Amino acid sequence: MRVLAFLDGTLANPEDPHIRVDDLSVQRGDGIFETVLAVGGQPRELRPHLDRLARSASMLDLPEPDDAAFERTVRLVLDNWTGGDECAIKLVYSRGVDGDPEAKPTAFVLAIPIGEKIKQARAEGVSVVTLERGIDPGQAERAPWLLLGAKSLSYAVNMAAGREAARRGADDVVFLATDGSVLEGPTSNVIIARGRTLYTPPATIGILPGTTQAAVFRGAERAGWTTKIEPLTAEDLRDNDGLFLASSVRKLTRVHTLDGERLPDSSAVHAELAKAYEDVYA
Amino acid sequence: MRVLAFLDGTLANPEDPHIRVDDLSVQRGDGIFETVLAVGGQPRELRPHLDRLARSASMLDLPEPDDAAFERTVRLVLDNWTGGDECAIKLVYSRGVDGDPEAKPTAFVLAIPIGEKIKQARAEGVSVVTLERGIDPGQAERAPWLLLGAKSLSYAVNMAAGREAARRGADDVVFLATDGSVLEGPTSNVIIARGRTLYTPPATIGILPGTTQAAVFRGAERAGWTTKIEPLTAEDLRDNDGLFLASSVRKLTRVHTLDGERLPDSSAVHAELAKAYEDVYA
Repeated sequence: MRVLAFLDGTLANPEDPHIRVDDLSVQRGDGIFETVLAVGGQPRELRPHLDRLARSASMLDLPEPDDAAFERTVRLVLDNWTGGDECAIKLVYSRGVDGDPEAKPTAFVLAIPIGEKIKQARAEGVSVVTLERGIDPGQAERAPWLLLGAKSLSYAVNMAAGREAARRGADDVVFLATDGSVLEGPTSNVIIARGRTLYTPPATIGILPGTTQAAVFRGAERAGWTTKIEPLTAEDLRDNDGLFLASSVRKLTRVHTLDGERLPDSSAVHAELAKAYEDVYA
Repeated sequence: MRVLAFLDGTLANPEDPHIRVDDLSVQRGDGIFETVLAVGGQPRELRPHLDRLARSASMLDLPEPDDAAFERTVRLVLDNWTGGDECAIKLVYSRGVDGDPEAKPTAFVLAIPIGEKIKQARAEGVSVVTLERGIDPGQAERAPWLLLGAKSLSYAVNMAAGREAARRGADDVVFLATDGSVLEGPTSNVIIARGRTLYTPPATIGILPGTTQAAVFRGAERAGWTTKIEPLTAEDLRDNDGLFLASSVRKLTRVHTLDGERLPDSSAVHAELAKAYEDVYA
């Protein structure tokens, strides 16, 4: 099942058409989004997601999103969700109709089920390939028009990277910068465990600040871990006690294979961190 | 006015919604497009546009577009166009509905008027700023998942570059590669005239092969010019007898100002080349 509502508080049938062909989301991928996990009717990290939506809006020179309206609409969608304990909630916000100087953003909230592939990734972990992303770590600051670190609707490259992974027999991707720095996955953040410390790269190198990564760090800190946000190299992807991808719907996913090479078993570390993450919402 | 038709041959009201919120064009900018100029009811360069659409489809692993259906639909839209001698015709082709394994591409053709800003650019020329694009000329070949040179619906960066130009008081942008090579504009190709020779960079460096650039070259060759496809440097943008942006709707547009500096007057060269281009369709 899918549940759809627009920001004015109207529910709508997601199988009906609701978007004009000249909406800038369709024409140019010109808009932003967030994907929020909801469990037991409660959205997780909604405040950080809305903050990140506002950050993306600012990077794309979009009008500031109406947080209260998005919160109400998320609530409305969840109140109408009957598809089980969990769902993924997409918040979409486009620049509106092309060529209309009075255009208002198109904004909606769509709840969808968690796919089988995601559930499998959570349970069994994933194989990952590293792919060149073609940016250097100073680029985001130097060239803001490249929208590095904005969660825009222009995700064709992220999708293409996923297909490249599949071609190489892998499930997912970690992007590397031109200097070999670790960036992020196409739809996830990278976390490394070493001893009792967790590491993730800083958003300033041109990646999305992770809402789930932050939640995992919060949970881990409560469980006695140290956390560090600092640049990671491709070597760090191997030199650790656990490599993970974090995203709202996949939560903390263990990477078991990197560029075709099986990594040492990190199941125990993963189980501990997965519990620390869940405890944030207990 | 706007005229809309779907690939099954049905006309539709462009002001009505026709696209689902979970279409991958909306959700991920996951699709491709072309913009074709039509003059006097005739589409220009339709065959090269359809060839480029097929090239983009291949780069995005989309099913091969149905050329004949697109041609018929372009004809249908033009037969219903009453908005004057010229229009821009957008061909859009997305991956279809997200999460549907049976999903068929969403495909439509939309005719829209030529905007005033475009007409002004044609007549008066444009001011341009150079902006870093953050790719190197070998990247397209090395990292096809970056979709460099595909005309995808993920154009948020192209749009952001246009806003950056406006912030700097300019009309348009020329992207430079990390090594200073000239790439392309966000929605155009770069052409330089030097003596009786025209130059444009090769598509292999990760840019779109230009349909209008090719038409200008054809026309110029007939008028006795030599044409060369070879890498250009940022210095070449100044060291020439004329700098131009070519795109379907703006045709061959003269650049009169580069990074805030007025360029020598190239009106005479522009007039000759603009005529050579129009003569292709005479």
